[in-house]
Amino acid sequence: MTQLSVDLNADMGESFGPWVMGQDAALLEVITSANIACGFHAGDPDVMADTIALAHKNGVGIGSHPGFPDLQGFGRRNMKLPAKSLRNLVQYQLGASLAVAQAQGAQVRHLKLHGALANMCSADEEMATACYEAALEVAPDIIIMVLAATAQQRAVEKLGCLWAGEIFADRAYNADATLVDRSLPGAVIHDADLAAQRIVKMVQAGAILPETGEPIPAAVDTICLHGDGATALQIARAVRAALQEAGVTLTPFEGRRST
Amino acid sequence: MTQLSVDLNADMGESFGPWVMGQDAALLEVITSANIACGFHAGDPDVMADTIALAHKNGVGIGSHPGFPDLQGFGRRNMKLPAKSLRNLVQYQLGASLAVAQAQGAQVRHLKLHGALANMCSADEEMATACYEAALEVAPDIIIMVLAATAQQRAVEKLGCLWAGEIFADRAYNADATLVDRSLPGAVIHDADLAAQRIVKMVQAGAILPETGEPIPAAVDTICLHGDGATALQIARAVRAALQEAGVTLTPFEGRRST
Amino acid sequence: MTQLSVDLNADMGESFGPWVMGQDAALLEVITSANIACGFHAGDPDVMADTIALAHKNGVGIGSHPGFPDLQGFGRRNMKLPAKSLRNLVQYQLGASLAVAQAQGAQVRHLKLHGALANMCSADEEMATACYEAALEVAPDIIIMVLAATAQQRAVEKLGCLWAGEIFADRAYNADATLVDRSLPGAVIHDADLAAQRIVKMVQAGAILPETGEPIPAAVDTICLHGDGATALQIARAVRAALQEAGVTLTPFEGRRST
Amino acid sequence: MTQLSVDLNADMGESFGPWVMGQDAALLEVITSANIACGFHAGDPDVMADTIALAHKNGVGIGSHPGFPDLQGFGRRNMKLPAKSLRNLVQYQLGASLAVAQAQGAQVRHLKLHGALANMCSADEEMATACYEAALEVAPDIIIMVLAATAQQRAVEKLGCLWAGEIFADRAYNADATLVDRSLPGAVIHDADLAAQRIVKMVQAGAILPETGEPIPAAVDTICLHGDGATALQIARAVRAALQEAGVTLTPFEGRRST
Repeated sequence: MTQLSVDLNADMGESFGPWVMGQDAALLEVITSANIACGFHAGDPDVMADTIALAHKNGVGIGSHPGFPDLQGFGRRNMKLPAKSLRNLVQYQLGASLAVAQAQGAQVRHLKLHGALANMCSADEEMATACYEAALEVAPDIIIMVLAATAQQRAVEKLGCLWAGEIFADRAYNADATLVDRSLPGAVIHDADLAAQRIVKMVQAGAILPETGEPIPAAVDTICLHGDGATALQIARAVRAALQEAGVTLTPFEGRRST
Repeated sequence: MTQLSVDLNADMGESFGPWVMGQDAALLEVITSANIACGFHAGDPDVMADTIALAHKNGVGIGSHPGFPDLQGFGRRNMKLPAKSLRNLVQYQLGASLAVAQAQGAQVRHLKLHGALANMCSADEEMATACYEAALEVAPDIIIMVLAATAQQRAVEKLGCLWAGEIFADRAYNADATLVDRSLPGAVIHDADLAAQRIVKMVQAGAILPETGEPIPAAVDTICLHGDGATALQIARAVRAALQEAGVTLTPFEGRRST
Repeated sequence: MTQLSVDLNADMGESFGPWVMGQDAALLEVITSANIACGFHAGDPDVMADTIALAHKNGVGIGSHPGFPDLQGFGRRNMKLPAKSLRNLVQYQLGASLAVAQAQGAQVRHLKLHGALANMCSADEEMATACYEAALEVAPDIIIMVLAATAQQRAVEKLGCLWAGEIFADRAYNADATLVDRSLPGAVIHDADLAAQRIVKMVQAGAILPETGEPIPAAVDTICLHGDGATALQIARAVRAALQEAGVTLTPFEGRRST
Repeated sequence: MTQLSVDLNADMGESFGPWVMGQDAALLEVITSANIACGFHAGDPDVMADTIALAHKNGVGIGSHPGFPDLQGFGRRNMKLPAKSLRNLVQYQLGASLAVAQAQGAQVRHLKLHGALANMCSADEEMATACYEAALEVAPDIIIMVLAATAQQRAVEKLGCLWAGEIFADRAYNADATLVDRSLPGAVIHDADLAAQRIVKMVQAGAILPETGEPIPAAVDTICLHGDGATALQIARAVRAALQEAGVTLTPFEGRRST
């Protein structure tokens, strides 16, 4: 019997100048992969360098986390950009990550899109392809982290690159693998134990388990955790503990390749 | 007898968003090395990509041209930053250049500091060392372009890296190799022929020729030209023509190493 | 018989830091009202002050021209913001205009929304109302410049404030008063004489004259001109000359109030 | 015998976009005047509106708190700007404050410079004069808050405007009324009781009491408090309590005029 393993990821390095965001140090003791902002929606060169150094010291896999150039909106506002501009902004931010990591003796293993850029790409395969193809031109062996069962995943499957599928620890799923709308009751899971037990089941099933309906086989390579607020950290720790309890190995993903 | 050769360099890629600056296309037919802004004082990912692609197509050597994070001030306002922040901002911008260049099938050959960052480093060896050392951690073989006979040059000599010395086509020099203050008459040379003849002499002498006083032997590897305004372009073309007339080969510098 | 009069307006003050945009000085000799950028999509405090001073000196009516906070995109990218944020960003920018104008001994007479903010408001009455109501809270007597026959106009009519209707000198209209899509032939008028003759007819008719279909009675209070490029300035001058030739008085609008 | 009274002020509204800074709500229960950031070094239109509304609701006097255009550096990095640019940036920010306040039914009573802009002006009377004169052109009755016994105070005395003198609750003074350098022991007071007792004595004496040397008669109109961190809030509350205990009335300053 194969040993089950999974990765735990979280966004970090989202401070900017004098403003602190998140509890990166605490979260780095929970996760195995860190998505580190690149200065467009959050982060600045100093924050990036410090965060990458800290992640590296903790043995956590380092990811580039590019977003829209919108600091005030934290990259959460949709922007309609030509494909060429998307490519350029991904390459610019990824390049910055690569250089800052190299200077810390660290390595960028993966790339995950942020905020509105990620949301738009999870519904628009062409847009996702533009972003990912751009990243692969710069770093051909990078592992692209995608929202499992979305247009993001379809994009990496066609590109033939290394990728890892992600599911959410604290969000309920519909029968078609989309997320339950945040405005509906139960859409966001606030109970740490509930979140933890659901994740253990999904990892063991290798499937997304929607609130109603059949299990949806999925690439459950990494679990998205959060670090903002006491509850988020509590959920993160509960998920980690429950997975270890269930005998699941927690380790950075190696990436899979669709052929 | 050795064939004399020299490089001609200019700043470019200084447009931003909807704002156009400079006459990059015309200048690229004159120069052999381009210093391309990296988005902090000018340029954005789209401008960088287009400029690098155009420079590459013209067979011009591509340089990363990092500056202070000050768009409104065009990187020309002094900023006092800790050494660590200087290192991080150089690495961030250089990384962005490397990635965008790679995606265009091009290569970043050299690095030149911009504006106030350059000015401060030409007087402060420790600051120059911090910036250059940071760049070399990311790209060990990059050629650092320095203002000849300044603290910038002392920094690269001690670092033992590849470097190229730069002199100005349109500025008069004092007997100690510093530039004549802009407020003094004759400090800036507006006559294209005069500028061209001076440069030919300096290249042939391998020395800075001050207005009064003895020749100062210097690393005359590259001539700084400008592209803003009709006069600047005229000077650039006159310098190129006069050097060719004098039998000097115009070609990207290979870099020298002090040992 | 009443003397016909109309206003000519143009956007200006769109330079930023070291980047120059437009031909403001030349345009100020043609127009009677200037829409001056407020630093969010273009302009900075220095550019604002200089432009307002110059417009004031030319006897041109001064307008505040707020836009989305998106310098790189020049305020031309749609942003979905809550009504409260729209209100705050309009008030912030209008306040800045008022203060800078006051310091130049000038007065802000009107407000016109810029770029994507204007486009969205011409299709969304609620959004237009939020923006205009916010402006009126700060400056109750300000004249709101609206795109004639759009949701912008419906908003000011309901608000009961002073307003002025605007038509374009260089754009063809559909039978329903919307603009012909830019991708269609003839959508943008490049011929200065043609543009001028059309405008004279519309001013005389007090109506928008679509390419096909009946005249659409409209508040033709001001004509939108442009200043970017030789053609734009040529059209602006031709429109001015043709209107004067036709005996139309060119003067800043006084504003109308729907009751 | 006249009733002693003093004002308590603090900087606030320093959040930006998604980043929260400070404990404004708690601090608003302690202070009588709030210095509210204007979007250049911190704050954005939404933060400004919310903060002004909250201050107004708490009956706290509202101040405009302009700074250098340097978000990443929080306005704490020296910038050398021409006097004209200083004037324009003060007017722009003050205008934004005035408009946003007016829309909340509130009024801007005072102006205080922020960070490096304030520091430079406390040593440079000409620079202070440029900034204050610019503010007075826009709001002739505004009260300028100055660091007592610095070039800031000399500037307002000559301008003949309304002003209020400020001393620090948590900083030790030298015999010449300058602050003890932060690198020296005892420069910053961390003990809430000590800070409170010192302030009571200074308010009662109408003088700055240096660590060694004679009392320096000073315009002790307002006490600068901080809200970042548990200690700062503790000091703020202790100062307030001690002043009330000593029978000092806490109320917004009315401003004094030097003649």
